[in-house]
Amino acid sequence: MLGPGDDAALVAAPDGRVVVSTDLLLEGRHFRRDWSSPYDVGRKAAAQNLADVAAMGAVPTALVIGLGIPADLPVTWLDGLTDGFRDECAVVGASVAGGDVTRCDLVVLGVTALGDLGGRAAVRRDGARPGQVVAVAGRLGHAAAGLALLDAGVPARTDALERAVAAHRRPCPPYQEGPRAAELGASAMLDVSDGLLQDLGHVAAASGVRIELDPQAFAVGEPVLAAAKELAADPLEWVLTGGEDHALAAVFPAGVRLPATWQVVGRVVEGEGILVYGREMGRGGWDHFR
Amino acid sequence: MLGPGDDAALVAAPDGRVVVSTDLLLEGRHFRRDWSSPYDVGRKAAAQNLADVAAMGAVPTALVIGLGIPADLPVTWLDGLTDGFRDECAVVGASVAGGDVTRCDLVVLGVTALGDLGGRAAVRRDGARPGQVVAVAGRLGHAAAGLALLDAGVPARTDALERAVAAHRRPCPPYQEGPRAAELGASAMLDVSDGLLQDLGHVAAASGVRIELDPQAFAVGEPVLAAAKELAADPLEWVLTGGEDHALAAVFPAGVRLPATWQVVGRVVEGEGILVYGREMGRGGWDHFR
Repeated sequence: MLGPGDDAALVAAPDGRVVVSTDLLLEGRHFRRDWSSPYDVGRKAAAQNLADVAAMGAVPTALVIGLGIPADLPVTWLDGLTDGFRDECAVVGASVAGGDVTRCDLVVLGVTALGDLGGRAAVRRDGARPGQVVAVAGRLGHAAAGLALLDAGVPARTDALERAVAAHRRPCPPYQEGPRAAELGASAMLDVSDGLLQDLGHVAAASGVRIELDPQAFAVGEPVLAAAKELAADPLEWVLTGGEDHALAAVFPAGVRLPATWQVVGRVVEGEGILVYGREMGRGGWDHFR
Repeated sequence: MLGPGDDAALVAAPDGRVVVSTDLLLEGRHFRRDWSSPYDVGRKAAAQNLADVAAMGAVPTALVIGLGIPADLPVTWLDGLTDGFRDECAVVGASVAGGDVTRCDLVVLGVTALGDLGGRAAVRRDGARPGQVVAVAGRLGHAAAGLALLDAGVPARTDALERAVAAHRRPCPPYQEGPRAAELGASAMLDVSDGLLQDLGHVAAASGVRIELDPQAFAVGEPVLAAAKELAADPLEWVLTGGEDHALAAVFPAGVRLPATWQVVGRVVEGEGILVYGREMGRGGWDHFR
């Protein structure tokens, strides 16, 4: 409604409530200028926050960005970053409403996303109940596979490997599935940013339930399988523990009819923690399971 | 409505629009850990963004904070910072709704404030018209005087000097005067963050008008006068060019009856730029005037 150039921006909030999420992203820790183009950094930084908003069941409306940049940063880098923010916002019909720029020794991005619930209840983490089913939408393990390829210095010789690396550079969150899940009656939801096991662990803890996952229910993507073969790695480890794809994980009432974009991968039972392969997720991490 | 701990926070926006402002604050550039307590850093960082929201005519409702902290930062420092954020929010009835914490070599604060207009039109920078009057509310020059004392290493031997240093450490923006000015019919408003001359220059440029200031109309505060005497400086330079007090400057229709919290200090005429002492504000900065 009123964009950059004033003390503050003005964003429509027709619902009478506004969903807001913020993240701080640092060069070297969250992105590398030698691994990702400025355009991809912008898209990824935007995607991460827009996905948080979608995971509440809201439609993202706007981003505001606090930007720290080194004095010697090329203007073309800044242009690419801005284009990336704009284009990722456009995917969901949101816009960049404002920002703040300051000098910094490294590139720092303070990204805040706003969203509108359109009359829906916010879908929190604490609503999972025994008897319900757990489902996921979007990619899982792609970004982790791509990062592993980059880490190992393995060239992306095939289309599948290239897609894994591309997934690390630019996530593709299933934004529209957030509000859709809310309308389908999701009782808990989050965006998978730290890995499915860890993030579902938050749902289990907040809801006071146990979540049992069926590893064989996951449709593992071709890029993940190709990267696993290339690096002699376990593809399911990336699927279950990889972050950065910003898939959505949600809990639905039993018997719900889900669209094909959602895969049922587990169920909610009495108890606590996460159960995979009949063993409890513990401090040992992934190795503990196999 | 829903605070920290989920993917995103939920904030009431009864107006159906939300005002949003974001800033990135960096240790070394925007604050120094050896000059300010963590509590004061939190209050100041919050105040800066809450004042931006008030300057649109809105009542601040919430802050979200992206926080970068070094691994060796004492927990007590973080506690003090959090207390500062909370207490400054409490001044305006807002709350800290959420945040994000990440490791960083220096302390980085990405602060975003939200606010509600309560049905009022947003007061922008481009609404000043010839014939209107310019008024200010809040302190001017106090923070700049305090910073000059700190820079010079002058001990705050008197109460007045101590108040100047305290004003640098913790601003005291006249938050309630923002919505009040909007209700009194302000046609343009901003919070003074870079200095009154520079910030009113933005109003003049955006509105296509000239602003004439009367230097003798300013009630210069005792801390400013005391610091000027101590450092043999010009107190009016701090008043007209000092930032960080987050006073509000607004343009009102001629003949408006303003409460005592607002001082009329100038008028809007045809033309461009800022006129002080009958001379135009130019690239020469303050020295150019005297």
